[in-house]
Amino acid sequence: MFIRTYSWFSSPHMGKNKTAITPGRAEDFPEWYQQVIRAADMAENSETRGCMVIKPWGFAIWENIQSHLDARFKETGHQNAYFPLLIPLSYLEKEAEHAEGFATECAVVTHHRLETVKDEVTGKTRMVPTGKLTEPYVIRPTSETIIGAAFSRWVESYRDLPLLINQWANVMRWEMRPRLFLRTAEFLWQEGHTAHETREEAIVETKLIHQLYEDFLRDHLAIPVVPGEKTETERFPGAERTFTIEAMVQDKKAIQAGTSHYLGQNFAKAQDITFASRDGSEQHVHTTSWGVSTRLIGTLIMAHADDDGLVLPPRVAPQQIVIIPVTPKEETREAVLESCRALAETLRLEQSYAGSPVRVHVDERDFGGGVKKWEWIKKGVPIRLEIGPRDLEGRKVCVQRRDQDPNAKDFIERVEFIRNCSTILAEIQQSLLDRLTAFRDENITECSDFEDFKAHWDGENPGWLLTAWAGSREQEEELSKAHKITIRCLPNGQQEGEETPCVLSGEATRQRAIWGRSY
Amino acid sequence: MFIRTYSWFSSPHMGKNKTAITPGRAEDFPEWYQQVIRAADMAENSETRGCMVIKPWGFAIWENIQSHLDARFKETGHQNAYFPLLIPLSYLEKEAEHAEGFATECAVVTHHRLETVKDEVTGKTRMVPTGKLTEPYVIRPTSETIIGAAFSRWVESYRDLPLLINQWANVMRWEMRPRLFLRTAEFLWQEGHTAHETREEAIVETKLIHQLYEDFLRDHLAIPVVPGEKTETERFPGAERTFTIEAMVQDKKAIQAGTSHYLGQNFAKAQDITFASRDGSEQHVHTTSWGVSTRLIGTLIMAHADDDGLVLPPRVAPQQIVIIPVTPKEETREAVLESCRALAETLRLEQSYAGSPVRVHVDERDFGGGVKKWEWIKKGVPIRLEIGPRDLEGRKVCVQRRDQDPNAKDFIERVEFIRNCSTILAEIQQSLLDRLTAFRDENITECSDFEDFKAHWDGENPGWLLTAWAGSREQEEELSKAHKITIRCLPNGQQEGEETPCVLSGEATRQRAIWGRSY
Repeated sequence: MFIRTYSWFSSPHMGKNKTAITPGRAEDFPEWYQQVIRAADMAENSETRGCMVIKPWGFAIWENIQSHLDARFKETGHQNAYFPLLIPLSYLEKEAEHAEGFATECAVVTHHRLETVKDEVTGKTRMVPTGKLTEPYVIRPTSETIIGAAFSRWVESYRDLPLLINQWANVMRWEMRPRLFLRTAEFLWQEGHTAHETREEAIVETKLIHQLYEDFLRDHLAIPVVPGEKTETERFPGAERTFTIEAMVQDKKAIQAGTSHYLGQNFAKAQDITFASRDGSEQHVHTTSWGVSTRLIGTLIMAHADDDGLVLPPRVAPQQIVIIPVTPKEETREAVLESCRALAETLRLEQSYAGSPVRVHVDERDFGGGVKKWEWIKKGVPIRLEIGPRDLEGRKVCVQRRDQDPNAKDFIERVEFIRNCSTILAEIQQSLLDRLTAFRDENITECSDFEDFKAHWDGENPGWLLTAWAGSREQEEELSKAHKITIRCLPNGQQEGEETPCVLSGEATRQRAIWGRSY
Repeated sequence: MFIRTYSWFSSPHMGKNKTAITPGRAEDFPEWYQQVIRAADMAENSETRGCMVIKPWGFAIWENIQSHLDARFKETGHQNAYFPLLIPLSYLEKEAEHAEGFATECAVVTHHRLETVKDEVTGKTRMVPTGKLTEPYVIRPTSETIIGAAFSRWVESYRDLPLLINQWANVMRWEMRPRLFLRTAEFLWQEGHTAHETREEAIVETKLIHQLYEDFLRDHLAIPVVPGEKTETERFPGAERTFTIEAMVQDKKAIQAGTSHYLGQNFAKAQDITFASRDGSEQHVHTTSWGVSTRLIGTLIMAHADDDGLVLPPRVAPQQIVIIPVTPKEETREAVLESCRALAETLRLEQSYAGSPVRVHVDERDFGGGVKKWEWIKKGVPIRLEIGPRDLEGRKVCVQRRDQDPNAKDFIERVEFIRNCSTILAEIQQSLLDRLTAFRDENITECSDFEDFKAHWDGENPGWLLTAWAGSREQEEELSKAHKITIRCLPNGQQEGEETPCVLSGEATRQRAIWGRSY
C-alpha cells in the first residue's frame, strides 16, 4: 500500500510517505531516472557496449513521435529516402572539420567475413574476423557525407532544387558514458538533409524546421523549450549556423532536444554539389541538416516523470486510457469484464483525441487490482478507470488522472465520461505543459552582475542564467570550464531588446545568452 | 513518340514498336530490371560496396508495405521493439549452425575511433582506425542471437509467454553479387521473434505468419505465391522447419519472398531461455522467427513491370492517380490547373480505396505533356488523367490505365470518374493479380518422368516443375548442382493428395516438390 501526500517537484520521501520509485528525484536524480525507465519497462542495457534494447512500451512512444513528425515533414514538402549505413572513410574525411568532430566516436568496419580457427593452447575453436577491407567503413554517426555524395549526382540544375530529403535511421557514436535514451552508442533518429539555390532559402528551411521542432515539443511532448542559436563553440562540426531547442528538466539541467543546421556551402564544396543556376553559371548549393532522436524520450522522462514513475502527455501515450476491472466476486466477474470491454469499444469507435481514435486498453490480466493500478501509474498512462460490480448498477466509472494524486478518485457518470474523455485528455496535456512552463520560468534568472553570476553555479541544482553577453569565444570557454556550464543558446528574438551591459565586460550589447549545466 | 501495340509478356521490340525501356524483358531480363529501376527513379548503387540508396519513389513503396504489414502484426498481438545493431561475436557463436551459416557474409567492427596520421612518404595526412575492441562485433545479419539474449532476461514463467516481438531494422549480409533490392549488402526488413510454451503453439505462430505473408502478397502486391515448406538443404541456419512463399517472376525464376521459421528449442538451449512451466518444472521455450525485406520491392518489379517501366498495384502505389493538366494556350492555363486541383481535392476528400483516402497528385511542372505522361508510365502509376481546355467545357476527363495500352484513352464524365475511381483502382489491382496468376499456372508443369525432368532444364527460361519426390538430401543436392535448380518448396497441402511415384526413384510418396531456378 502506498500512502502519501502528493506534490509535484517536492520530494515526498520523508516520514511515512512512500512512493513507487526509490530513490526519489530530490534524493538521487540520475538513479531515479534509471529506476523510472525500469519501472515503466521502457528500455534496458544490452550485451553491446553502450547500446540499449528499446522495449515495447518505450518503442511505442517512439512510434507516436515518429508518426506525428513524419506527417509534419511530409506536409512541409519533404520526402523520405534511405542511405547506406556504412560510410567509406575517404568520404567522411572530405569535410575536415566534420571528420575531426566525429573521429573519436566512430565504430569502424574493417573485415567482411568470419573464420573459425583452433586455439593452439586450449584446442577449442573460435571465430575471428577475416577478409580485410581495402578501405575501412565507419558506421554513420550522421549522414551529411554519404547523402552529399548522392546529392552531387542528383542535382544538375536549379530546376532540381530545392531537394528536401529526410531519413529515419539508426546511427552510432561511441559514447564513453552512456545513459539510456539520453546518450547511447546507437540511437534512432531522423535526419533531414536539404539543398537549396540560395543562402536565404536554406536559412528559411533551417528556421522552418527549428520552429517545427519547437511546436512539436510544446504541442505533443508538453515541453516548453527555449529556442535559440548556438555559439561557435557548440555548433555542429561543419555548420555555419546551428539552431537548437533547449529543454529544462527537473534537476534544472538543459537537454539539447533537437538541432537544425545551416551548413552553408561547406559540404557542397567538399563534395562537389553544383548546379547550373538561373543565369547559367555553375554554383554550389547551400545545404541544411536537422534531426531529433530517441533522446526525446529521455527528455520526456526527465521533464514529466515523478516519484511514482513515468508521466505521459496524452498525445504520445501508447495507451491514453486503461480500464481496470475490479472483480471481487466470481459471480459478477464476467458482467464487469463485459462492461469494461463495451466501454473500451465505445470509446475507440466514438471518441477521438487530437485527430485519432482514443487509445484504450482493458487490463484483463489475472492480478490484483492494486498491482495493476500501480503498474499503469508507473507506466504513466494519463487516465485510469476502475469499474467494479457496484459501478455497473450506478452506471458510474471511477476516474483517476496521472497528473493528480494517485489516490484521488472521481466517480462520474459513464455517459458523461464518454462525452468528456477527449476534454479530460486535453486538460492533462495542458496541465503538464503548464506546470513545466512555470517551472522553467521560475528557474531562469536574469543576471547582470558578474559576482552573482559566479556565485550562482556553486548552489545545488542551479537553474539557468540569462545574461547580456558580448564576450569572445575564448572568454566563453573559460567560463564554461570554470563553472562546468555552457551557453545553451542565444535565445530567439535577440535583436528585439535594448542594449544592456555584458555580464563579463560591461560592454553594451543586444545579445543575450542562456547559461546552464546540461546533459 | 512511342507507337506500338500492347501485349503483356510479349516482347514488342520488333520492327517499329518502340518501348520506354531498352532492352525489353525478352531481350535481356537482368538489364531490363536495372533499367526499370532507373527509369522509375527508385534506387541506385552507392559508394558503399553492395549497398543501395533507396530514392523517394522506391522508399514510398516500402513505407506502404510497412504500414500494411505493421497493422497486421499488431492486429495479431505482436509488439514492436528495437535491439542493438551490433552483436558481440561470442553471442553469434552460441548457436553453431547459425554462426556457420552467416560467417562468410558478416561485416565486422573491430575499432571504435579514428586517428589522423601523416603519411611518411607523401607527407599527407589520412585517418586510420584505432581503439581496437577487445571483442569484435558483427553488424546483425539477423537478430536471433541478440534478441534471444533479451528473451532469456525477460522470460521467467509461463505467464510471460507467449512473447510476440517484431523489429523493423536494417541488416547486413556481405553479398558478393549484389543486385538492387533483390540482394544488397544492407537491406531493410522486419524480423519477428516469438517465444512459446509448447512446440504446437510455436508452430501455430509460424504458420499464422506464413499465411499472413501469403495473404499480404496476394491482396496488396498482387503476387500469387506458392506457399510451402523448405527441405533441409534450404532451411534457415538453426531452424527446424522453414516455411516460404515463392513468387514466380516474368523470366520464370523463383524469388523466395518471405520466410517463417520454427526454431525448436535450438536457440533457447544455446541462450538459456527457460521458464517455470505450469507444472513447476524448468523448461526451454520454443521460438520462431520470420521476416520480409526490401527484396519484396525487387519481386514486385520483376513480377509486374513491363517494357514501358514499372507497373504498381494500386494498394502500394505512392500515388494512385496522377492528373496531368494539358495547357496548350496561356489564356486557359489557369482554368485548367484550377480544375485539376479541384478534382484532386474532391477525390482526396470524398473517395477512398482499401480503407485510405485516394492518393492523387497533380503534376504542375513546367514540362511538355508527353514528357510527363511517359514519366508516370515509367513510374507505374495506376491511373493517369489528362485534363485540357476542351474537357472543361464537356466536364470530361481522359482516363488512361497502366494495365492497358499506354495510348488507349477513355473519355468519361468527370462525376462518373469521381464516383467510380475506387472501382477502377480495384479492377487494376485485380487485373494484375489475374494475369500473374495465369502466368504462374501456365509455367508450373507436373512432371513424372525423369528424362523429361532432366530435359526441361536445358530449355530457355524453363518454368517450374512439380514432381512427386521421395529422394534423399544427397540426391536433391546432386540434381540441384547438375541443373542449377533447387527445390523451392514442398507446397502446402502435401498430405491431401494420393501417393504417386517419385520422379527419381519411382518410390510411392505423397510428398510433392516444386523445382525451379531462383534469384
